[in-house]
Amino acid sequence: MSNTSNKYAFGMIGLGTMGRSLLLNMADHGYAVAGHDKDAAKVASLNEEGKDKDVKGFGDAKEFVQSLTTPRAIMMLVPAGKIVDSVIAELTPLLDKGDILIDGGNSHFTDTNRRVDELEAIGLHFFGMGVSGGEEGARRGPSMMPGGDKDAYNVMKPIFEAIAAKVDGAPCVTYIGPGASGHFVKMVHNGIEYGLMQLIAESYEIMKTGLKMDNDAIGAVFTKWNDGRLKSFLIDITKDIFAFKAPGTDHLLLDDIKDEAKAKGTGKWTSQVAMDLQAPIPTIDSAVSMRDLSKYKALRVQASDLYSKDAPVLKVDTDAFLTALEQAFYFTMIISYAQGMHMLERASEEFKYDLKLGEIAKIWRGGCIIRSAFLNDIFNAYEKNSKLEHLLLDEHVHDLVSETVQGARTVLSATIAAGIAAPAFTASLSYFDNFRTKRMPSNLTQAQRDYFGAHTYELIGKEGVFHTQWVEKI
Amino acid sequence: MSNTSNKYAFGMIGLGTMGRSLLLNMADHGYAVAGHDKDAAKVASLNEEGKDKDVKGFGDAKEFVQSLTTPRAIMMLVPAGKIVDSVIAELTPLLDKGDILIDGGNSHFTDTNRRVDELEAIGLHFFGMGVSGGEEGARRGPSMMPGGDKDAYNVMKPIFEAIAAKVDGAPCVTYIGPGASGHFVKMVHNGIEYGLMQLIAESYEIMKTGLKMDNDAIGAVFTKWNDGRLKSFLIDITKDIFAFKAPGTDHLLLDDIKDEAKAKGTGKWTSQVAMDLQAPIPTIDSAVSMRDLSKYKALRVQASDLYSKDAPVLKVDTDAFLTALEQAFYFTMIISYAQGMHMLERASEEFKYDLKLGEIAKIWRGGCIIRSAFLNDIFNAYEKNSKLEHLLLDEHVHDLVSETVQGARTVLSATIAAGIAAPAFTASLSYFDNFRTKRMPSNLTQAQRDYFGAHTYELIGKEGVFHTQWVEKI
Repeated sequence: MSNTSNKYAFGMIGLGTMGRSLLLNMADHGYAVAGHDKDAAKVASLNEEGKDKDVKGFGDAKEFVQSLTTPRAIMMLVPAGKIVDSVIAELTPLLDKGDILIDGGNSHFTDTNRRVDELEAIGLHFFGMGVSGGEEGARRGPSMMPGGDKDAYNVMKPIFEAIAAKVDGAPCVTYIGPGASGHFVKMVHNGIEYGLMQLIAESYEIMKTGLKMDNDAIGAVFTKWNDGRLKSFLIDITKDIFAFKAPGTDHLLLDDIKDEAKAKGTGKWTSQVAMDLQAPIPTIDSAVSMRDLSKYKALRVQASDLYSKDAPVLKVDTDAFLTALEQAFYFTMIISYAQGMHMLERASEEFKYDLKLGEIAKIWRGGCIIRSAFLNDIFNAYEKNSKLEHLLLDEHVHDLVSETVQGARTVLSATIAAGIAAPAFTASLSYFDNFRTKRMPSNLTQAQRDYFGAHTYELIGKEGVFHTQWVEKI
Repeated sequence: MSNTSNKYAFGMIGLGTMGRSLLLNMADHGYAVAGHDKDAAKVASLNEEGKDKDVKGFGDAKEFVQSLTTPRAIMMLVPAGKIVDSVIAELTPLLDKGDILIDGGNSHFTDTNRRVDELEAIGLHFFGMGVSGGEEGARRGPSMMPGGDKDAYNVMKPIFEAIAAKVDGAPCVTYIGPGASGHFVKMVHNGIEYGLMQLIAESYEIMKTGLKMDNDAIGAVFTKWNDGRLKSFLIDITKDIFAFKAPGTDHLLLDDIKDEAKAKGTGKWTSQVAMDLQAPIPTIDSAVSMRDLSKYKALRVQASDLYSKDAPVLKVDTDAFLTALEQAFYFTMIISYAQGMHMLERASEEFKYDLKLGEIAKIWRGGCIIRSAFLNDIFNAYEKNSKLEHLLLDEHVHDLVSETVQGARTVLSATIAAGIAAPAFTASLSYFDNFRTKRMPSNLTQAQRDYFGAHTYELIGKEGVFHTQWVEKI
């Protein structure tokens, strides 16, 4: 099948910012690459930006396909949904058996499952690959999560390893697993991202509304956090945001931005799928519901007028409280990652993905949105014990949790009393307090279900299910 | 089409406990009714239990169908899922145009939508009807939520009104709306049920683990609650459960029941669909995730050993704390219903259900699992203002919230400090505290999304969407 007369080692369909950046990244690493887009302006952009590199943009799909070495490796970076299917439909007649199509967008993993099957049936390999890092990551080194046929992966492996972010010399890309596992892992990555972003927003709220700190002081806290164990991409950019003035003014652009958070769906999917898997991730659920609540601005304004007299105030020593807040953040950040990793463990079991959680932590350490100093600890925990069932059961993580949980208790008991909302913080703490509970009060839930719906219950130390007539029938 | 030689006014397919009970209830109200089941034993059971009534069980589907007056009204009470489709497929060849099929089970509303369309295409009416109240409700008076073709509803209306629970003489059944609206409303009913059950379980945990109260004392609290403004079916049965000894022993059966809560899916669906609708219901989400967490008993036991030294204790005055706990329960119960009603309001808008929220509150006051004294307040709020956008914006509800929110703050700041998990309580309070926030910290979330993903943001008082290059490109 090999066609040595062709020139380009990798093809990209969809030459938006991400697609162009990835291609230029590949070219920087010595690969000859081709791109295709129906938008002539984007093709021209690529040719202009890549004029000193071995890069070529094509407006014609057939020419583009024919310019690639075989088996062809072609990535799509187009909006998730029906567009992916229509690009596939246009492309497949032009391909040969053994060619590889890679969906680099945030497709729902169930769509990816379907496409893997559909393309396998006609002799093509389909990869779902999560790509994280935004434009800058794509251009300078993203974290990538490819899932699909393992042999086919070897075709792309050198290119992907070349362009990926590096941490201690190790590339932030690895073969994730079969089927839609790459997109699944990226979805959970984004769910964790939702959780961490919500925790940062709540920290801001606690400092602003609770401690009455001004933006400079809040920015200084995020800067300090980022210089310590909380070091992470998301806190790093938060620090920058607290330094960015609205053009031509003396105040932060942040203060002018509407408090209505948007979402593109991956966080929601994470929560919905976690519920199907019965893998509890309440921190992420809470981040999803708070993005939704933020949209009801008009209702909130009315409620704010109606309930303003119910607002108590926070009276604490600011310095001591900030120390506790740093601990609280570290603690709840651990819980967020732990919930995500547990969800991956459950999915790996349920969908037979055979995920290597240590490898996943490893490739999340660089390039991606949730990279953080703590990901090294996660990596180490799974290196020590690849069968670790839950991150909170690792001894070192236990030590970190034990050292910081009291800070969370201090902060949250005070914010609750003071009427400051910190839903992801409290969801994380109550997850932890339930997780470390040998006996939850769920026996009562089961008794109630049996009482009103004859749903039966199980007994401690006795096989079987039982039903009781709890009161005499009327 | 009318066939006066036939005898029975209503038919039931699926003669399990619920189906039999509903038929006998109809017969008690003077209706001649027929049942069909493939299980001969169940047919015999119906004939035995109904021997002094105008009730007849059929083993043969054709005979059953032919015994009904036309247009026929036939309810299915079979397990949700594929069985519903196979019963429909077997039945439809036996029916005539204009006949009415009613699914009385807990089907997912998207399945019901599909079935409405499929049966409409062959001239049949399909109803999705929520039925709540368990066996006892079915036999003595359930709450029913029928959705489908409005004219067809009039055929069943006299029977349903006769058998429904009554509150102040008003039957707990009403025409809900078109399409799958009946099943949708029942799903949200069950979501609220999950929330309330979780709040009761957490109250139990707070009293047991926090206040170290024994079962008798806890049962006395639930009894007292049920004699006051917390009066409700779920607290009523909880009180009974705290009086029920394991047969032949001196201790409660409750203590022998495993703390692993099961679920049949309606609570999960409520959370998943709420996320699609962007209607935040974090109290219910939390109940779903805690049922899931309860299943990981082995992990919890390990974590309990590892983290036992991190367990602080609750030191409070028990009587004062119990007063606050009653307030906390009342407050969070209001929040649970408010989230559910808001979700219904959103669904009504999205799916054009034209739901009458006051009528829904009215039929939930009796017969169903979430019936409670407070449902009268909800009913009154929507009677006063049928366009009320959110229950928390009602003046009377505001007064009730203002009177009780401090109790919630007192209880939860103490339980958080003491390491006692109360996730649905804290989710409710932080929902409230965010809901009454004019400016949420979500501007930071939007700034972050724009920073790393160029997702743009909106500005206060300025039309359009904007993107900023927050730092210079590398």
